[in-house]
Amino acid sequence: MIREWDEGLISHESFERNMQMEAECVPCLLGRVLFETDLCAPEKKAKVMRECVKVLCEKYRPGVNSAVIATMVHRRAYDLLGCRDPYADLKKRSNEIAEDIFERAKDLVRVAKDPLETASLVAIAGNVLDFGISSSLGNPERLADNFDSLVNQGLSINDVPRMREILENAESIVYLLDNCGEVVFDRLLVGELKWFGVEVVGVVKGEPILTDATEEDAVSSGIHGLFDELLSTESFAVGIDLKRIGKRLKRKLEEADLIVSKGMANFESLSDGELRPIAYLLRAKCLPVANAVGANKEDNVVRVVG
Amino acid sequence: MIREWDEGLISHESFERNMQMEAECVPCLLGRVLFETDLCAPEKKAKVMRECVKVLCEKYRPGVNSAVIATMVHRRAYDLLGCRDPYADLKKRSNEIAEDIFERAKDLVRVAKDPLETASLVAIAGNVLDFGISSSLGNPERLADNFDSLVNQGLSINDVPRMREILENAESIVYLLDNCGEVVFDRLLVGELKWFGVEVVGVVKGEPILTDATEEDAVSSGIHGLFDELLSTESFAVGIDLKRIGKRLKRKLEEADLIVSKGMANFESLSDGELRPIAYLLRAKCLPVANAVGANKEDNVVRVVG
Repeated sequence: MIREWDEGLISHESFERNMQMEAECVPCLLGRVLFETDLCAPEKKAKVMRECVKVLCEKYRPGVNSAVIATMVHRRAYDLLGCRDPYADLKKRSNEIAEDIFERAKDLVRVAKDPLETASLVAIAGNVLDFGISSSLGNPERLADNFDSLVNQGLSINDVPRMREILENAESIVYLLDNCGEVVFDRLLVGELKWFGVEVVGVVKGEPILTDATEEDAVSSGIHGLFDELLSTESFAVGIDLKRIGKRLKRKLEEADLIVSKGMANFESLSDGELRPIAYLLRAKCLPVANAVGANKEDNVVRVVG
Repeated sequence: MIREWDEGLISHESFERNMQMEAECVPCLLGRVLFETDLCAPEKKAKVMRECVKVLCEKYRPGVNSAVIATMVHRRAYDLLGCRDPYADLKKRSNEIAEDIFERAKDLVRVAKDPLETASLVAIAGNVLDFGISSSLGNPERLADNFDSLVNQGLSINDVPRMREILENAESIVYLLDNCGEVVFDRLLVGELKWFGVEVVGVVKGEPILTDATEEDAVSSGIHGLFDELLSTESFAVGIDLKRIGKRLKRKLEEADLIVSKGMANFESLSDGELRPIAYLLRAKCLPVANAVGANKEDNVVRVVG
C-alpha cells in the first residue's frame, strides 16, 4: 500500500477517512461473538451465532460504519448470553498484568529523551490487551513477554510533534479510554499531558462492552484520580456513539483543544464525525483499520487529524 | 474432551455423528469466502460478503449439515466472483511442492514396518494443503518444512488394523480424493491398497471447488493411472453431495467393501449418510470436525466407521 501520508500526498489536515464496515470485518466480528459466547455461555453459541448473522443480514449495507454494526451485533449477543460482562475475568487479569509491568513502563518514560512520545508509545503497547480477534494475544499474561518488542517497534506514524504543538496552546483535553490493562499504561500518558497545564477529562464506557474500561475499571486501575473529571459514554457501544452521549460530554468534546482517542473502536466511531482535532493512538490490529488510518497492519500509530 | 472411542465407551460400529453446522463454522466459512475473493476479484469483496451473509441468514438452521451450507455459500461466492477456479494457482503450486517431497514420502513407506499405516499417515500429512482457514499453511511451499513433523506426529486415532481386516476380504474400494497436492501422496496409499488385489475407483470433484482435485488435476498429478476407474461427483459441492451423484458412482459407493474418504469436507458430507464401511482419513483442522470424529484439533486420524 502506498503510505500516502508519509509521502506527503495527503496533508494531515485533509485526512478524513470514514471507517466503513469492510468485508474483513464480518468474519472477525462473528469470531469475536463466538469468543465472548465461549467465555460465559458456550451452550448458547448456535443460537447466538444465528441471531448475530441475522443482525448482519439486516444491517450490513454499503458504507455503514463498522463500529455501529459491531455495536448492534454485540448488543444482540450480550442480550442472548444473559451475562452483563463476559470479559470480566480477562479485564481483571489485564489490569493485573499491566500493573506487574507498570514499573518497567514508568522507567522507560522517566529516562526517555521525549517523555511525551514514549508515554504515547507505552500507552499504545497496552492496546494489544484486546481479545478474541486474530492478531490479539492469546491471554493477558503474554503481554509480559511481548511488551519490550512492542515498545522497541516504535511508532510507524508519529504525529507526536503535532500533538505537542496543540498541547502547548491547549486548555482542555478529552481522553477516550479503551481497554482494561491498557488504562494502567494510560496513567503515564495522562501524567505527561498534565505537564502542559491542561484540564484532562477522562471518558469510560457507560456499560461493559468487550474489554473496555467502565467507571468501575477506571477506579480499580487507579487512573480515575489523574483526571480532572471522569465522564462516561452513558451507553453500550463499540467505541463511542455520539448520538447517545450526555450533554456534558458532548460539550467537553466540542470544546476540547484536543481529543486523545485510544484504540481502534474509538477511531472507527469518530472517523465519521466532525470533532477536531483528534490524536488517534492505536495499534493497527487489522487491515481495514490500518488502511483507514494510513498505516500497515501491526503498526503503532499516533495520527493527529484536524 | 473424553475420547469416548478410545475408552471403548462407544464401539466403532455405533459411531455415527452427524456433522452439523456449528457456530464456529460461520466465521471460518466467511473467512474462506474472503480468502477466495482476494484470490481472484478483491474489488468485489463487499458485495460477495453481503450476499454470503444473506445465504447464511436464510439457510443456517439448527441441525443443518455443515458441508451443505458451505456448498451454498461458496456457490454464491463463485457465481459473483465470475472466475471458475479461484484456487487454480494454489492447486498448481500444491501439486508442485508435493511432487518435490514425494520421494521422501515414498522412502518412508518403502522402509516402514507397516506400509499401509505409513502410506495412510503420509496421505493425511498431505491433507494440510488446504488454504484460507485459520490452521492451514500460509502457502503450499511451507509444506516442505512441515512435512517431517506432520509425519512424526503419527496417528492419534489409528483404525488401520480394522481397515486392513476389511481390505483382506474386499473386492472393491471407492477412494474419495480431496485436495490437490494431497493427491500426489495419495498415490502411495492407493498403491498399498492395490496390494490387496482390490479394484480401486477414484472419485474427483465434478467442478472446481476450493483446492479439491478435479479430473484434470487427477490427470496432471498422475494419480488417475493408478485407479481402475476414475469417476466424478458430477457437481459443485464441498465434499460430496450424494443427491447429485450419477448412477454409476452411486452403485459403486453402495457396493464398495470399503470407502476411503479423504479430508474434512468428505467426512462432513458422509457423516449424515448410510454408506458403510468408511475409513475417514483426515487431519482435524478445526474443532467442530475434531469433536465430530472424536479427536483433538490438529490430530491425524484414521477412523473406520461401520
